[in-house]
Formats: sequence, C-alpha cells, structure tokens
Amino acid sequence: MTTQAKDLNDLFLETLKDIYFAEKQILKALPKMAKKAQSDELRQAFETHREQTEGQIERLDQVFELIGKAPRGKTCDAIMGMLNEGKEIMEEFGGTEALDPGLIAAAQAVEHYEISRYGTLKKWAQELGHREAARLLDATLAEEKQTDTLLSKLASNKINLKAA
Amino acid sequence: MTTQAKDLNDLFLETLKDIYFAEKQILKALPKMAKKAQSDELRQAFETHREQTEGQIERLDQVFELIGKAPRGKTCDAIMGMLNEGKEIMEEFGGTEALDPGLIAAAQAVEHYEISRYGTLKKWAQELGHREAARLLDATLAEEKQTDTLLSKLASNKINLKAA
Repeated sequence: MTTQAKDLNDLFLETLKDIYFAEKQILKALPKMAKKAQSDELRQAFETHREQTEGQIERLDQVFELIGKAPRGKTCDAIMGMLNEGKEIMEEFGGTEALDPGLIAAAQAVEHYEISRYGTLKKWAQELGHREAARLLDATLAEEKQTDTLLSKLASNKINLKAA
Repeated sequence: MTTQAKDLNDLFLETLKDIYFAEKQILKALPKMAKKAQSDELRQAFETHREQTEGQIERLDQVFELIGKAPRGKTCDAIMGMLNEGKEIMEEFGGTEALDPGLIAAAQAVEHYEISRYGTLKKWAQELGHREAARLLDATLAEEKQTDTLLSKLASNKINLKAA
C-alpha cells in the first residue's frame, strides 16, 4: 500500500471545503432573499447577515492558510437542497402572508446547518491542536447562533403583532 | 381569480410533508450508520435513535390526522444531500480513525436540520391554533435536541479518551 490511511486532518479539510462552498452559495442567495422579504426588519436582517457572511468567508480563508492549504470549495448538496427549498418558497408563496415566515424558516434551516458544521470544525481544530483556527471558527459559530436567535425573534414578533 | 391565495396553513402542510419525507429517509439510513460505527456507544446511539424515529413518524401521522390531511411526504433535497454526505464519509473514511467523528458530524447536521424544522412547525402550529399538534411537535423537538447533545458528548468522550 502506497497510500496513507486517511485521518482527522483529511476529514477536517473536507468539511472545511464543504462549508466554504456553502458560505459562497449563501452569499449569493441572501440578496435575493432580502429583495423578496416583506418586512423591513427581515430585509435588514438578511442584509446584515450578508455582510457577516463576507467576514465569515475571510475567516475560512485564514483557517485554510493556518493549516497550509489553498482555500477551495467542494460541492455541498445539503446547502444546495436548502437554498432550493428557499427558492421554491419564494415562488410558491410570493405576495402572500406566508412569504416572510417561509423565508425565516428557510434561513433558519441554513443557520442550523452552519451551527452544526462550525461546532464540529471547532471541536476538530481543538483536537488537532489548531488553536488559532479554533478561535476563528468559534467566532463564526457565535455569529450564526446570534442570527438564528434574531430570526426566531422576528418570527415571534410577527406572531405577537398579529395576536395584538 | 378562482384560486385562493396561499397562506400559513399551506406552508405548514408543505413543511410537514418535507419533514415526513426526511424522517422516512433517516429511518432507512440509521441502520446503515449503526452497522458502520466503530464504537459500541455510537452504534447504540444510532440504534436508539432509529427506534425514536419510528415514534416520531407516528407523531407526524397524528399531526396530519389532526389537521384533516392524508400523511404524504414531499422530496426534501436538503436531507438527501445530508444523507449523501454521510454515505461519502462512510466510503472515504471506512476503517480509519476518522470514521466515527465523521459519522457523528453527519448525524449532527441531520439533527440540526430537524431541530430547525420542528421548531418552526411547532411555532406555526401554535399560531394556527393546533394545540395538540404543537404538543406532539414539541415532544419530537425535545428528542432531537437530546440526540444532538448525546452525539456531542460521544464526540467529546472520544477526544478525552485519546488525550488521556
């Protein structure tokens, strides 16, 4: 056997490529979601998260550099599926009262995917002794959790307004 | 116009169909993941979650009944993408030390997707006045969160054992 058995370093790199691809797709999807959002707060939330996403991609560039690899994405079917579901909602529910709740739900599915990926990557970075990478991944993890909480709040605000 | 504008009831039903399809796919994937798992604890966790998933599908059947609709799934590209990523990990990292961490990561991505879906569905059920449906969805949400916590613990145990 001339090939070496794969290890956690390889898995870390593969997963890093997966989220790198995902973030770039999310960066393209967010302006479309912002444009469709009916409430100003939701549009603002998507615009703010687009800016955050740019910073998150820069952090991933730094992580690739820290482990001595070129930043490269790898097609992530999961994120493509989630973003397609978001597109379907925009088509099916455009102009209805269900559009904003649907957009929030689609965005929260994406946020949760990212929370699981960054949580995993941070843990592996720690295990592999990449302390600075772990710190960068943790900073993004905190932002994704904040975004998810904000989206939950926007969903509840709407409900409370309706009930009032 | 003879067609009525779509509303939150339609969005609730669409999303219910999405998670119904997802749960059935997860039910098929879990035994394969259990078979591949290297540690006994991880295998046990997947087997236990398979049993839980059967109960979760039954709860979804009840929710469909409560809203007067026939239980039907709708292809969910997101879950297919996540389960494909799990398959790739089993192929690429089979027999290596990275297999179990990879399986845990794949399973946690799925759990987080489900947490976002059930959180959303529970909120909408409450808003639509489906109190019993909201209770059933909340019971499953709690189980998904427990499973995610258990998987995080298994991932950390492994790390701690290695470090010892």
